[in-house]
Amino acid sequence: MTTTSATNTAYKTLSKAMYNAALLGSTAALLGWEQETYMPNGGREHRANQLAQLAGMTHKMITAAEIGELLSTSEADASLAGEPTSESAVNLREWRRAYDRATKLPQSLVEEITKTQSLSQGEWAKARAESDFSRFQPWLEKILDLTRQKAECYGYPSDGEPYDALLEEYEPGATAAQIERIFTPLRDRLTPFVAEIAASTSKPAGVLHEIQIPKEDQKALSRFVSESLGFDFGRGRIDETTHPFCSTVGIGDTRITTRYRDDNFADALGSTMHETGHAIYEQGLRGECFGMPMGSTVSLGIHESQSRMWENQVGRSIAFWEWFAPHAKRILGVPALDAFTAERMYRDANIVEPSYIRVEADEATYNMHIMLRFELERALLRGDLSVKDLPAAWNRKFKEYLGIDVPDDRRGCLQDVHWAFGLMGYFPTYTLGNLYSAQFFETIKEQIPDLDDQFRRGEFSDLKSWLNQHIHRQGMRYHAGDLCTHLTGKELGADPLMRHLEGKLRPIYGI
Amino acid sequence: MTTTSATNTAYKTLSKAMYNAALLGSTAALLGWEQETYMPNGGREHRANQLAQLAGMTHKMITAAEIGELLSTSEADASLAGEPTSESAVNLREWRRAYDRATKLPQSLVEEITKTQSLSQGEWAKARAESDFSRFQPWLEKILDLTRQKAECYGYPSDGEPYDALLEEYEPGATAAQIERIFTPLRDRLTPFVAEIAASTSKPAGVLHEIQIPKEDQKALSRFVSESLGFDFGRGRIDETTHPFCSTVGIGDTRITTRYRDDNFADALGSTMHETGHAIYEQGLRGECFGMPMGSTVSLGIHESQSRMWENQVGRSIAFWEWFAPHAKRILGVPALDAFTAERMYRDANIVEPSYIRVEADEATYNMHIMLRFELERALLRGDLSVKDLPAAWNRKFKEYLGIDVPDDRRGCLQDVHWAFGLMGYFPTYTLGNLYSAQFFETIKEQIPDLDDQFRRGEFSDLKSWLNQHIHRQGMRYHAGDLCTHLTGKELGADPLMRHLEGKLRPIYGI
Repeated sequence: MTTTSATNTAYKTLSKAMYNAALLGSTAALLGWEQETYMPNGGREHRANQLAQLAGMTHKMITAAEIGELLSTSEADASLAGEPTSESAVNLREWRRAYDRATKLPQSLVEEITKTQSLSQGEWAKARAESDFSRFQPWLEKILDLTRQKAECYGYPSDGEPYDALLEEYEPGATAAQIERIFTPLRDRLTPFVAEIAASTSKPAGVLHEIQIPKEDQKALSRFVSESLGFDFGRGRIDETTHPFCSTVGIGDTRITTRYRDDNFADALGSTMHETGHAIYEQGLRGECFGMPMGSTVSLGIHESQSRMWENQVGRSIAFWEWFAPHAKRILGVPALDAFTAERMYRDANIVEPSYIRVEADEATYNMHIMLRFELERALLRGDLSVKDLPAAWNRKFKEYLGIDVPDDRRGCLQDVHWAFGLMGYFPTYTLGNLYSAQFFETIKEQIPDLDDQFRRGEFSDLKSWLNQHIHRQGMRYHAGDLCTHLTGKELGADPLMRHLEGKLRPIYGI
Repeated sequence: MTTTSATNTAYKTLSKAMYNAALLGSTAALLGWEQETYMPNGGREHRANQLAQLAGMTHKMITAAEIGELLSTSEADASLAGEPTSESAVNLREWRRAYDRATKLPQSLVEEITKTQSLSQGEWAKARAESDFSRFQPWLEKILDLTRQKAECYGYPSDGEPYDALLEEYEPGATAAQIERIFTPLRDRLTPFVAEIAASTSKPAGVLHEIQIPKEDQKALSRFVSESLGFDFGRGRIDETTHPFCSTVGIGDTRITTRYRDDNFADALGSTMHETGHAIYEQGLRGECFGMPMGSTVSLGIHESQSRMWENQVGRSIAFWEWFAPHAKRILGVPALDAFTAERMYRDANIVEPSYIRVEADEATYNMHIMLRFELERALLRGDLSVKDLPAAWNRKFKEYLGIDVPDDRRGCLQDVHWAFGLMGYFPTYTLGNLYSAQFFETIKEQIPDLDDQFRRGEFSDLKSWLNQHIHRQGMRYHAGDLCTHLTGKELGADPLMRHLEGKLRPIYGI
């Protein structure tokens, strides 16, 4: 036996405490997943109470004074904290960040937010079903009020704004002003490009999405594609929800959900590939580092880069469709598909056209949905926009950016669950994900030159291994921006995403 | 505002603390349910850790020194504790009982038991699948050792035995010697009666159980019967597991599970009606008393009396089948059923014949399966039987009581999950349930004389209301034996069950 120094003991005690907090957090994740999938309606209020209790307990565990002491003791040891990208230094850096943030929130606020989220989400579902914003309005006002309180507790620089305090939760290091600076050139180039596409007379036929496919066959196709891309069903499952998501509820247990529409199997397919991308990231984390930053994901933007890569860079490529088309025909077994070549499916999978629903939007216009939300939630938080004026503001901006009139709030500002959950500062991470995804993928194609040929053979393991090695197993070693520079040699920019979109869409649309 | 006395404050604080413990317990119940229904295999070890953590936390909450102080303060107030069957007195009596028991177990033992249960259950499932007792043996030895430790921590009277300490958990007030005294006359009368039936030359045809029915149609039938009997699907659900069970995971959220066999729809039907009976009890508890003894079930024996009543007194009556037969034909839609009259279905539902599997056993021989287990687990705990000799002892007794040779351990001592969970002292409650069920039902028929006519019309709400009023909404006001005397005017005995079985089976078997 070697003698363990006091600092090593502190670090081990800290690790165990953070493991316990993460263990309880994973229990809450299961309750959250189950609430969306199988819980009967009668259990909603009790579930909200269960989640509030767990949130309160977890908050208490991670904000205990002992955690602060263990952190200080460990940080003072250069052998633990001295080398910035060593495992222990990364863990300490992120635990410190989380501790400082968590100790700024009173437990009563944490519990109230959690309970309100759960109830508010139920009301949002009813409001959306009835397209009745007035039903949701008081809940959003309450959520907004709680979110502002949260932002003020966290604090932000004097030249910043409340939005920055929230962003820090999802995309550490980013600010609203920075995001505006990245989004602006993207919009400047994307807007005329989308207009060019809209004006083109050479469009994909677009009838692939209109073929009626029974849900059970779509489920089989979802499972097939998810498994082929690399999702491990021994350590996960697929279920059905209103809004698709991915949730890890424990080591070796990552759940994805999707949704099925009889008249549009491409919708389920896209959602499944998207959530599979998230799940491959989660399944690729180091299980032995559960509860540690080294076993955690970098940011929502990086998380989204993984889902977008499998959904778009892979799932909307001609190479993918050359492999996938015969399997889709075989599994779906509808005669209407016989007439479709891989090329025609690929073209139909790449239709670009303004539409109302974000999660159904195409790869290009999707980013406009995001910019609109980013601006509106920023205005709500600043107090420049009141909740009651949200539908009108939404509809006005929608017309401005996408050129179409929103017919009702169900297809407008009530479409997303995010705000009902109090997720503000979250939306921009989706477009950051698109940007990271395109930039990473250019680098990967340089390093694996025959990637397209592999996809044509249904082989996705080289791509998965690359992501496992360079991103997933690195945990939070680098923040998002640094990871991007480290892997691609450049800061995040709009060029790779525009090259990806233009390179693919110009030939399809003959422009 | 009235002034609140110190004792009332103590009682309220105690109630809130017990609510919180029950709330966390309901989270564990959900994890347990989910482990059996949807969890991927890769999540098993993590789930065991989650459950161990919750068990440890709950144990800590209910054994806190503050709870003991609040109990003592409240008990000293005659306005709270003076009237033995008042709500506050009942709550205090049972909280005291639970507190005294819980403080006898060290937290480390509680956590070890919970974790071992979860892992052991996985090993049991594999051992059963392979009919390989040696695989399960070390786990059962570990479970037995932990169970003995538990019994010694609880303690038992000097003229008692370790078994009594465990029984107290499931059937408060009962002892092994008492149960032996109730079971002996039952066996003395049931054994020759079953022999008479076996010797009869006038048997039901028994082909109803051999009709092939697709699982989806059986699911529809299960849902129909469960809803018709009174299970509220707005506050619950049905799923599929290896071993059917009922679990309340929150106020307004009670889950039942069943299992489907292509070649025996009566198996799923019986399981569903059985679990529906448990669920109607749970759904009938007073939600506003969640976490309080006044909102809890009396004992496992009484719980089982509810499941058995719906399964046997209702579900195996001619009146039930006269209503149900046309619905079964309609929902299952198989031509093979056309030839079956209600009378013939009723006769086939009442076949009595020795068989290997307890959960498939008929209403009469079932009790012999229980007596066998009662004797064996009592011997294991006393040390009169070692785990390695269990299969041989099982098979020997099985031959003696049921007259047939056990072909393998899968159909012998590996068939039940209970011991893998450490549930010893639990089995006798099943036959206690049969006894209570028959005795309660005789009283109910006296008070609702047209009950059979109601069943013939598919009306079950009067029976449900009677049970709601006299049993479910009474919580733990009376212990099982007192409840029986209070409701039926007599102590529990073997006569009503024997009258029920003989009254029905003699005409069917022409004896």
